[in-house]
Amino acid sequence: MPKAEILDPQGKAVTGALERLGFSGLAVRQGKRFEIEVAGEVGPDELDQINQAAEKLLANTVIETFSVRVETPEPVPDQT
Amino acid sequence: MPKAEILDPQGKAVTGALERLGFSGLAVRQGKRFEIEVAGEVGPDELDQINQAAEKLLANTVIETFSVRVETPEPVPDQT
Repeated sequence: MPKAEILDPQGKAVTGALERLGFSGLAVRQGKRFEIEVAGEVGPDELDQINQAAEKLLANTVIETFSVRVETPEPVPDQT
Repeated sequence: MPKAEILDPQGKAVTGALERLGFSGLAVRQGKRFEIEVAGEVGPDELDQINQAAEKLLANTVIETFSVRVETPEPVPDQT
């Protein structure tokens, strides 16, 4: 996600579009999401590797923050 | 996130770049993440509104799935 002090024109545009569609009172910030599939268990080593990958390649840490979350692979109740 | 049956060239490019950087065995898919700030409590009405906003504007449900998650606003332990 863009850091709090960084302008987010995409998020601003989405906020404006939502308002025009009748959704008011929502402030949106837009960022990226990566789903990384790992074969086998995610232990401390794998997590460390993924944190390094996020810092080196996936996030621009000058302007973005990132967080890593482990999810189990059983079908998540996604909507549509 | 792009649906499983949808090609994800961005994710493929990231997977390739990670391999060249020495991170092997990771399969990446890239999607979007929106953080939506709501004033006050998020009750069933607010959640319903946000689900509608996601379906109408934020996600392209022909090729993307989405999921909505409520987070409390206390500072999340983001990394860098």
